[in-house]
Amino acid sequence: MTDDTAPDARRLSRRGLLGLAGAGVVGAGVGFAVDRVAVAAPPSGNSGAAANYPFYGEHQSGVTTAAQDRLHFASYDVSDVGRADLNGLLKDWTYAAARMTEGRGAGPDGPVGGAPDAPPDDTGEALDLPPAGLTITFGFGPSLFDHRFGLTAQRPDALVDLPHFSGDALDQALVGGDLCIQACSDDPQVAVHAIRNLSRIAFGRASIRWSQLGFGRTSSTTRAQVTPRNLFGFKDGTANVRAEDTDQVERHVWVPRGDSASWMTGGSYLVSRKIRMTIETWDRTALREQERVIGRTKGEGAPRSGGSEFTEPDFAKKDDGGPAIDAAAHVRLAHPKQNDAAVLLRRGYNFVDGNDDLGRLAAGLFFIAFQRDPREQFIPIQLRLANNDAMNEYIRHVGSGIFAVPPGATKGSYIGAGLFES
Amino acid sequence: MTDDTAPDARRLSRRGLLGLAGAGVVGAGVGFAVDRVAVAAPPSGNSGAAANYPFYGEHQSGVTTAAQDRLHFASYDVSDVGRADLNGLLKDWTYAAARMTEGRGAGPDGPVGGAPDAPPDDTGEALDLPPAGLTITFGFGPSLFDHRFGLTAQRPDALVDLPHFSGDALDQALVGGDLCIQACSDDPQVAVHAIRNLSRIAFGRASIRWSQLGFGRTSSTTRAQVTPRNLFGFKDGTANVRAEDTDQVERHVWVPRGDSASWMTGGSYLVSRKIRMTIETWDRTALREQERVIGRTKGEGAPRSGGSEFTEPDFAKKDDGGPAIDAAAHVRLAHPKQNDAAVLLRRGYNFVDGNDDLGRLAAGLFFIAFQRDPREQFIPIQLRLANNDAMNEYIRHVGSGIFAVPPGATKGSYIGAGLFES
Repeated sequence: MTDDTAPDARRLSRRGLLGLAGAGVVGAGVGFAVDRVAVAAPPSGNSGAAANYPFYGEHQSGVTTAAQDRLHFASYDVSDVGRADLNGLLKDWTYAAARMTEGRGAGPDGPVGGAPDAPPDDTGEALDLPPAGLTITFGFGPSLFDHRFGLTAQRPDALVDLPHFSGDALDQALVGGDLCIQACSDDPQVAVHAIRNLSRIAFGRASIRWSQLGFGRTSSTTRAQVTPRNLFGFKDGTANVRAEDTDQVERHVWVPRGDSASWMTGGSYLVSRKIRMTIETWDRTALREQERVIGRTKGEGAPRSGGSEFTEPDFAKKDDGGPAIDAAAHVRLAHPKQNDAAVLLRRGYNFVDGNDDLGRLAAGLFFIAFQRDPREQFIPIQLRLANNDAMNEYIRHVGSGIFAVPPGATKGSYIGAGLFES
Repeated sequence: MTDDTAPDARRLSRRGLLGLAGAGVVGAGVGFAVDRVAVAAPPSGNSGAAANYPFYGEHQSGVTTAAQDRLHFASYDVSDVGRADLNGLLKDWTYAAARMTEGRGAGPDGPVGGAPDAPPDDTGEALDLPPAGLTITFGFGPSLFDHRFGLTAQRPDALVDLPHFSGDALDQALVGGDLCIQACSDDPQVAVHAIRNLSRIAFGRASIRWSQLGFGRTSSTTRAQVTPRNLFGFKDGTANVRAEDTDQVERHVWVPRGDSASWMTGGSYLVSRKIRMTIETWDRTALREQERVIGRTKGEGAPRSGGSEFTEPDFAKKDDGGPAIDAAAHVRLAHPKQNDAAVLLRRGYNFVDGNDDLGRLAAGLFFIAFQRDPREQFIPIQLRLANNDAMNEYIRHVGSGIFAVPPGATKGSYIGAGLFES
């Protein structure tokens, strides 16, 4: 419990207060604040139960933050409301997100305080849980800059509509969105709690268009993290940008001062792709073929050209007359050397959404990447992969999103303030 | 790597070997066994990364075992094969399950050994992960005892078809199944790996009918475990049977000697119910009403009649003239005192399957309960709840299963041996 709940509450828009807890709250007073407390809860994941990351700052958390183990991602459509309501929603989301990343309830009264005839302003399922490294990251899709909110002139040049990629099998219900929220935590109940409460707060102003749970990170974003495996059973993202490489992060991840949209300085661009893997086909494929497709060994994760996991691939090396790393191998086509040094900060997750009608696992990779400019990074890399990658035989891109991730908010302000006040 | 891989492999049915790794394996020899190893992997969950539970024993693990944090549950239909193939499948599943619970690959060569022109006999995504408390529990549905496999006479009396319960909204695609597997672990990647590999091994003999991932346990099965919260935000299963209460476990969970089906001695009956919660409606319901429906306080989880979480509810107590615990409160109707002392060992999980077309979270509780006889335990309790529980306004039962969980296998034998050899 902290003493800033009352001023925080006063910063909420009136609509937000209604959304949070019904009409009774202000009258009932916010003195009886009940916050989430870190009691004896099971430690879970990477960063330890007690890890928490600051919500406010130059950049949003959840980009270079050491990738947590679990994900709940949601894309939202804004309802038939105007600019003021959208602005109010972002203020309310900022308020609630900052609280939840500290391990507190979404609203000042929590699940058990306030007026008993009002709904709780927190849903309660994370009441006894520490934040477990929770980060909540907001983004704005291209459609937010259409005629509805008077934001057309603020659309950044880099926030392009993604082109069609060869082999795309997109389900339009899994594409796009006006807004997105990426919630990551080492405890899935905490990530789910965040998306649920932010969706509740958005009631009447925005609703979920599509969403995705991920159970296992597929990338490391710091050098201390062990490289994880994707559902092909291979180590993924060995060559990822790491938070410690501050030069690379500045060059490839954050939008620099002087960009076309000044409100995006210190922000980044998020591209998401829902990639279904044809697990059952892959599982009946010879090990030799699996390693040819990836271009790495399955056990160690070493390039097929030799060495160990972090050895640079030698794309020129021959093996039995042919290239040691196949011309169509994923590691070759995705490698910065083959893409004019274009790199991404990848932050993807494994998913299993149950099974399809034929009893096959509906499983794959929910790809997330952050970058300074998708026109120079994700798009050229993916055009190349879509045309040539040997992996294409075993995957299908079914969902897609691109979002401008604004810079972090300063305390007292809110996410996207620069957009509305520029 | 252990020295018993060769004898284990010899116990595999021929079809199992084909399913596991293609025709090349036996010829190539199984000397080059590569097992999963516990390297520096993130600790995760309750029971510690290193926890492992024995697969073989009097009872199957995963019943009284301290409930792990994550679930992957799958129901299977047996394909158009005969009794020998079903029998072979159970042998192959036993072999692979025992290995995986020890943190080893599903087959003797692992993801990276064996003949390079054969598919790996393990899919690899858990290669670097410890078992994290993995248990794999098998069950047999009523339909397994139809005309197909010559097992009609062995069907236990207690393995009834569940009756229709008032308000049931079952989706037939989420009901029943010939076989089931419950995989629980504190690491979801390990649970998913188990179901995936067992499904792979079953190829041509059985395929998934329906499946469910759960991210947060909703019950404690030992006294050391903190009571978790369901997605209503309330503590659940406070009055659950605990492993330490050996008298209760013997009386209410395990099938005793002298039961109608002797092959079930030491087994149990599993009932699963997929329960969708209307999250958005609940979240707009007053705290007072939420607590009336449950019959407990939201914060502490104490009965509305007073005390703290583990205080026995006083169903006679009055409050403002009416009963302190509402006549229709869930805690009253589910309580053993109100059900002729019928109790269940509950082992449920929270789930979020994404969202529906209207942007609402497809979320709820995947209820699992173990018991000695569903006719005296789950069925009468659920008949009572289905007719009267105030919670019914906020839930819908959409999936259902009942399975005979045979006793544990002894080393050298297999799950269900008693059924086939009785």
